[in-house]
Amino acid sequence: MLRGRQTWVFPNRPTIISTATVGGPFEAEGPLAEDFDLLHGDLWLGQDSYEKAEKKMLEVACEMAVQKAGLQKQDIQFFLSGDLMNQIISSSFTARTLAVPYLGLYGACSSSMESLTLGSLIVDSGSGNYVLCGTSSHNAAAEKQYRYPTEYGSQKPPTAQWTVTGAGVALLGSKGEGPKVTSATIGRVVDMGVTDPFNMGSAMAPAAVDTITAHFRDLRISPRDYDLIATGDLGRVGHRIAVDLLKKHGLEIPEDRFTDCGILIYNQDQPVVLAGGSGCGCSATVAYGHILNRMKKGELKKVLIVATGALLSPLSYQQKESIPCIAHAVSIEYDH
Amino acid sequence: MLRGRQTWVFPNRPTIISTATVGGPFEAEGPLAEDFDLLHGDLWLGQDSYEKAEKKMLEVACEMAVQKAGLQKQDIQFFLSGDLMNQIISSSFTARTLAVPYLGLYGACSSSMESLTLGSLIVDSGSGNYVLCGTSSHNAAAEKQYRYPTEYGSQKPPTAQWTVTGAGVALLGSKGEGPKVTSATIGRVVDMGVTDPFNMGSAMAPAAVDTITAHFRDLRISPRDYDLIATGDLGRVGHRIAVDLLKKHGLEIPEDRFTDCGILIYNQDQPVVLAGGSGCGCSATVAYGHILNRMKKGELKKVLIVATGALLSPLSYQQKESIPCIAHAVSIEYDH
Repeated sequence: MLRGRQTWVFPNRPTIISTATVGGPFEAEGPLAEDFDLLHGDLWLGQDSYEKAEKKMLEVACEMAVQKAGLQKQDIQFFLSGDLMNQIISSSFTARTLAVPYLGLYGACSSSMESLTLGSLIVDSGSGNYVLCGTSSHNAAAEKQYRYPTEYGSQKPPTAQWTVTGAGVALLGSKGEGPKVTSATIGRVVDMGVTDPFNMGSAMAPAAVDTITAHFRDLRISPRDYDLIATGDLGRVGHRIAVDLLKKHGLEIPEDRFTDCGILIYNQDQPVVLAGGSGCGCSATVAYGHILNRMKKGELKKVLIVATGALLSPLSYQQKESIPCIAHAVSIEYDH
Repeated sequence: MLRGRQTWVFPNRPTIISTATVGGPFEAEGPLAEDFDLLHGDLWLGQDSYEKAEKKMLEVACEMAVQKAGLQKQDIQFFLSGDLMNQIISSSFTARTLAVPYLGLYGACSSSMESLTLGSLIVDSGSGNYVLCGTSSHNAAAEKQYRYPTEYGSQKPPTAQWTVTGAGVALLGSKGEGPKVTSATIGRVVDMGVTDPFNMGSAMAPAAVDTITAHFRDLRISPRDYDLIATGDLGRVGHRIAVDLLKKHGLEIPEDRFTDCGILIYNQDQPVVLAGGSGCGCSATVAYGHILNRMKKGELKKVLIVATGALLSPLSYQQKESIPCIAHAVSIEYDH
């Protein structure tokens, strides 16, 4: 049901009946290690390419989520997924393994909440019962495609972010016990003219702010209605910009209630992670792992996950285009 | 509303209130030239790259559809689009121009019906009124990304297809005059082990057949309920395979009611087009141009568009993977 300009309210409150998160070696060294269902000690996962390793992670995450819910693969009615790889091959090849009806998405790192939004619409409207929403990213596969293969040892500025090696999936159902998806705000593309792909957090911050302000305007609620508002992967640099921009929009979010998955996932003193985590797997693993775990423990009752995406391509960058960005926000509630 | 395993029925029958189709020089020489709203004499459209030309086509198609409906850009509530370019930049940069809430999709050449399916779900469930569903492809941009730049003059086998230079968009509304979207079948990924990207029609035919049989099984109807069933871009080779496979599944579609957009769009004696058209723009321009025009003339009352997509990437091909394929089917009815 449309509320305001760009927010869907889900009166039937689709349930996140299970989730699964898989991470890699850098995530294992981070402060949220215990929130992952499975961590890998190397980037290869026994595969012969990084791309196949990413696909493997997503496949395993899907399998685990289905298993945790006590279901079989064939109970899943729809699979919605997107990732950073050209032609989203991680998602599409996982969909081949799952062999269930599939809708491929692309919202860069906003894909996590894009799939949860559309999955919730499907469940809420009675168009499907068990809907699997997933995404993944792999540090070395992303570096190779977007920048330089990691093996080249190229230097990066401190504003750069570190692509999370991880897959996160949520299984939605029309009934059952678990956190409920209550609304979603679909973002517009915002482009403030940033052209530096080593400063993605700054590029994406205005899109996050646009969606957050739209969410509160459309639902006529205030940030205090949430125990936590977490953006996807603005990192330390983008987060500061978002705080400032929100203030300018007259929206002050208490500091202890506003965070970013890209900040949470790594320790600040971990080498190489620079301004924080990024990648589709960042918001997916932090939201479906750490944040939902906190909800299950009763520490948080109502959260807003604002997944941010930079919609550039290496080619658009080479052709001197600036970076169009987007953010999709999903509110999740859990009453025990 | 879910019917059977993978088909959504839209009781509120979203209306296609307007469409727009833009084509390039090869399409202008084809038999459907008169069905395009706008044809370009060269591949550049005054832009300085093929990729920018593709974006321009999609932008213009969106603009025309909005104008034809007597609306303004700001009346559009959601834009759903996908394309073949890495990170779907044609769609995302068009979304930047439109500045409306945007959901990026990727289903390769099935993106046309994927966006119409999800757009219809949004309108049908009361989650949006004016939803713009689009896609595009550009011959030279696709050749450069997937194969070799056209300028190299590489030879191709006769099973190869020719990527359509075109953009097609449909504007959906909850009310109004026009063809109605009545149902949609969401496809599964089917991979029969074909590895030859110059024989995409053969790779995609089994996916088309899987979705077509699912459609008739889920809705308990027969091919005779449709005046026309058109696959997206199987081309001449894939079409023959689809006919044979359907027969094996006990589903015989009368020859005069079964066609393929990739066959329709070019004359068989046009040079270079080989086995027929392909690309996201193929099913989009043929369906939203030629086929809907025939419906408006009263020649067709009920059609099923089965957009087919090959979900490979150049990298998955280089890593010796076979080609996962998918097809999404949408039924459209028009009673005068």
